[in-house]
Amino acid sequence: MLKDIKLYEFLDELASPSAAPGGGSASALLCSTAASLVCMVCHLTIGKKGYEESEHELKRVLEEAEVLRKKAEGLIDGDTNAFKEVIAAYKIPEEDAKRSIIIQNALKNATATPLEVARIGVRILELAKIVAFRGNVNSVSDAGGAALAAGAGLYGAIFNVKINLKSMNDETFKGSTKIELNALEERGKILLEEVNGIVSFKLSN
Amino acid sequence: MLKDIKLYEFLDELASPSAAPGGGSASALLCSTAASLVCMVCHLTIGKKGYEESEHELKRVLEEAEVLRKKAEGLIDGDTNAFKEVIAAYKIPEEDAKRSIIIQNALKNATATPLEVARIGVRILELAKIVAFRGNVNSVSDAGGAALAAGAGLYGAIFNVKINLKSMNDETFKGSTKIELNALEERGKILLEEVNGIVSFKLSN
Repeated sequence: MLKDIKLYEFLDELASPSAAPGGGSASALLCSTAASLVCMVCHLTIGKKGYEESEHELKRVLEEAEVLRKKAEGLIDGDTNAFKEVIAAYKIPEEDAKRSIIIQNALKNATATPLEVARIGVRILELAKIVAFRGNVNSVSDAGGAALAAGAGLYGAIFNVKINLKSMNDETFKGSTKIELNALEERGKILLEEVNGIVSFKLSN
Repeated sequence: MLKDIKLYEFLDELASPSAAPGGGSASALLCSTAASLVCMVCHLTIGKKGYEESEHELKRVLEEAEVLRKKAEGLIDGDTNAFKEVIAAYKIPEEDAKRSIIIQNALKNATATPLEVARIGVRILELAKIVAFRGNVNSVSDAGGAALAAGAGLYGAIFNVKINLKSMNDETFKGSTKIELNALEERGKILLEEVNGIVSFKLSN
């Protein structure tokens, strides 16, 4: 599994001429990195003097961020596997009657993974906002970094969903997916602005 | 070294109660991820039919992106080491006459690392723009993902520079650093908008 290889080997794999792992796996890595930073800020706040009132909420945030970072970690491999199926489907001989159906199914699976990454990205942004607002002020740069990584993971995942949708022909699926993407994009934009506002204020005061 | 440990171990370390690795190392990882994606898009374009005119430029981009991703990879550890020195400096007994100077020097070193990450982030954004514009259209989502990761690495690194500046008392150094940060922020913003425009256009056509 990709997450079991060394960090620099993963980056080598990403940089290699092979199309997988690609942007989808990178987006999952970004979301996992973001959730990890949220966890760290929680740890650096819980039990610290002056943050007694945040403790209860940050314990809950920590618990959820731990779940999300593991989910995102799993999707690093998930996206690569789903994308490899798409590549394999396109290699089926043109005369095979099932080729088109297999390609379309592979594309649908390969769309589901970055869509899940995008949903997780938005949720991590929501948690990053809480830790930016209520977490240890000495770690506010980490809370900000978490939001930026989650935002990049979110929008990177959306690019990957969109490129798959281009080759799909199920108009109902495409329509409903685009509606969800718009909602995720809008929500992400607002959250990023909010976190940036909180972090910038705390860094300048 | 951090980059020699397994990917999931790095994420565990990041999520742990220890303050290092933190947001600075995460920003370096994001930049290395971004540069790796730029390399991949170059590989998936060079030698491909229809991209003969891009080949010369993308070979040059690939060469530079390989250097940048290794530099950023080194800064994953570089930031953690510099930050550990800051933590050690603050642990020096208050009565030690050299404590303040050691802290200030450690902070200056810990500022230099994310500043370098931010500079690399801007340069990767410039390369991501070239591959988004001239690279294989089937990989335009990866070029977009590269820009997003570089942007998040850039702004995350800037947050880390700013939080260190808050505790520093060399006003000349602070002033010149802030001027450079403003320039990097502005340049990054323009590049992100440009790449987003190119990628969104290609994904919708």
